[in-house]
Amino acid sequence: MSDYLISEKSLGASVGEVAPQSVEFESLPLDSGQTLAPVTIAYETYGSLNEDRSNAVLICHALSGDAHAAGYHAGDDRPGWWETMIGPRKGFDTERFFVICSNVIGGCKGSTGPISINPATGREYGLDFPVVTVGDMVRAQKLLVEHLGISRLLSVSGGSMGGMQALQWAVSYPEAVASCIPIAATQKHSPMQIAFNEVGRLAIMSDPNWNNGDYYRGDPPDGGLAVARMIGHITYLSDESMHEKFGRRLRDKSSLGYDFTMDFEVESYLRHQGEVFTRRFDANTYLYVTKALDYFDLSAGHGVLEEVFRDLPQDMRFLVIAFSSDWLYPPYQSKELVRALKGNGIDCSYLEMSSSFGHDAFLLENSDLTRMVWHFLEATAHRIGLRFD
Amino acid sequence: MSDYLISEKSLGASVGEVAPQSVEFESLPLDSGQTLAPVTIAYETYGSLNEDRSNAVLICHALSGDAHAAGYHAGDDRPGWWETMIGPRKGFDTERFFVICSNVIGGCKGSTGPISINPATGREYGLDFPVVTVGDMVRAQKLLVEHLGISRLLSVSGGSMGGMQALQWAVSYPEAVASCIPIAATQKHSPMQIAFNEVGRLAIMSDPNWNNGDYYRGDPPDGGLAVARMIGHITYLSDESMHEKFGRRLRDKSSLGYDFTMDFEVESYLRHQGEVFTRRFDANTYLYVTKALDYFDLSAGHGVLEEVFRDLPQDMRFLVIAFSSDWLYPPYQSKELVRALKGNGIDCSYLEMSSSFGHDAFLLENSDLTRMVWHFLEATAHRIGLRFD
Repeated sequence: MSDYLISEKSLGASVGEVAPQSVEFESLPLDSGQTLAPVTIAYETYGSLNEDRSNAVLICHALSGDAHAAGYHAGDDRPGWWETMIGPRKGFDTERFFVICSNVIGGCKGSTGPISINPATGREYGLDFPVVTVGDMVRAQKLLVEHLGISRLLSVSGGSMGGMQALQWAVSYPEAVASCIPIAATQKHSPMQIAFNEVGRLAIMSDPNWNNGDYYRGDPPDGGLAVARMIGHITYLSDESMHEKFGRRLRDKSSLGYDFTMDFEVESYLRHQGEVFTRRFDANTYLYVTKALDYFDLSAGHGVLEEVFRDLPQDMRFLVIAFSSDWLYPPYQSKELVRALKGNGIDCSYLEMSSSFGHDAFLLENSDLTRMVWHFLEATAHRIGLRFD
Repeated sequence: MSDYLISEKSLGASVGEVAPQSVEFESLPLDSGQTLAPVTIAYETYGSLNEDRSNAVLICHALSGDAHAAGYHAGDDRPGWWETMIGPRKGFDTERFFVICSNVIGGCKGSTGPISINPATGREYGLDFPVVTVGDMVRAQKLLVEHLGISRLLSVSGGSMGGMQALQWAVSYPEAVASCIPIAATQKHSPMQIAFNEVGRLAIMSDPNWNNGDYYRGDPPDGGLAVARMIGHITYLSDESMHEKFGRRLRDKSSLGYDFTMDFEVESYLRHQGEVFTRRFDANTYLYVTKALDYFDLSAGHGVLEEVFRDLPQDMRFLVIAFSSDWLYPPYQSKELVRALKGNGIDCSYLEMSSSFGHDAFLLENSDLTRMVWHFLEATAHRIGLRFD
């Protein structure tokens, strides 16, 4: 989620140059009862689909991510957001697997969202875009996966909101998922997670430029979006990593300024992150995606989570991963998933990684994470009879 | 800091009706090198000063507090912010002690601050008010304490920023302090604490109504101030207390609204807190007080904290208190204080209270806190030869 954390050094091999793709579907029914029509899904793929179409792995992105998960777009020297994990001989090994990543609906990077043109009006949707859920995002991805001729994914994975989508896949389409790797995720958004999102939304909606979502022909609500991003950014870090990274170091003065310009490095870092974000992200998308997160509750209508997992096929496998210093999606939330899965006799491994990097840890190069995912996918492939030469 | 947490039930005896007081001093030199002149200090007192003026206890308030710490103003049914702790036979026992609380300079409740009239211009100071520090706040309190004829305080105490002022008192005026009770405090603001404050400040300064601090003759930046307060408010609670208090309970609908009105109780609670705050607090004061917090660093210029405490009188006593679920001012910060004090052979007790209420725990009725403080003050009084009939 934090741009700076994507380490570009020692990445090893890359999938190299990749090109964005997209496909349009006639319509998508939504959890709200509304229908989105038509609906475009932007996506990328890495590696090759094998003959019996059994080696596909779906990667789901987090709040501020997109379909560009690995490799480089032509003329761009910035790799995809999970370059550390996706590529030849990496965790999601593109020499073995066909890796797919798509932009969520409601997003602003090619899939239909509030910045898309509403066919009913000929103008951008803005707030006329329907509120979507994680379930809707996954329903759209199912159309894409079917379009690619894949009836069952070898695995579905992602961090944060990506992990929630992975869980939703397992529950919504159990026959279409052989394994699931939710990372730094949760079964449902907690009141604290909702609270931080709500303040971010209010920061955007309080910006006069927001204009009730109708700002695409004028100045966007960059001030509000930057504040929202800064709030989010703090929650992706940890007390410990902030001590290590910034401490109380002053910015570019030798002493306190005794004014309201920035004194500390952590201040200028955050303001920079907020500002950079406004150049690549849409404020309405921030509203829609955070709302989808807050609505996420796997056990809604079921009472208890164990109930939700009761009908999962007994050969489905899970690898649940959490990070010790992640206070936004704390390890106890991952453990709740593990308990409910194990309570149903589902094959589930749990890994709580010791890390000082907070929620953002899933985006960082991490040889343990790589190894765990690689071996889990190897074992899953073996289980379904897939062999590599 | 959270208004709702002040329990009004089972408070036992109260100091009853109290009246605000104030005193003006000619000038106050500031850490920045500037001078504030004149300077008014608003304060309240509870209980009676004894003949040899040896039973005075100074209470310091937190970010959003003021001089009204206990009892009731005429015609007001809302007690002071620390009614749970100050009163007859309470932790700060007004049958024994003369309790003083003053509004910090930079504040908006009677002490000189950005809303005061700048004698140089005849208009509100706004951003012409000088940036003040916790050291400046304490320097102003020293003038007040001297004005009251008190040469040595029996104790100085407070929670959060109040605890930082208490620590600053011990370091700045060691001969004038017999004991010190910092609660949920720290030796210096951490990068995470600075970060949350900076986002709050930016929310205010991004509000067009803020107008570079010059808004006293127009509409104040309520939107920005509400967002700042909401961010702060989340950090004063805990994951656990929010689960207990809100969970994912919906507000006043039976199902999700699929729109951007509020769905969850936690959302309406936070918005209400933000809105209420704008009615009683000044946005510029929020900027000044958070800046003072961020500048707070007891060991600045000393290298290590142990060094700072080296010259404290050996008969000074400390009671350092932290709360287990306080993630904004975590117990490890209090333990750093304790280690540095003990390293100098200073008499120091440490109490880490088990609580699910996060940073706000210090404002809640708590019989253990009451008992610990009562006994600590009793022992301190005994030590200096003060006897009660």
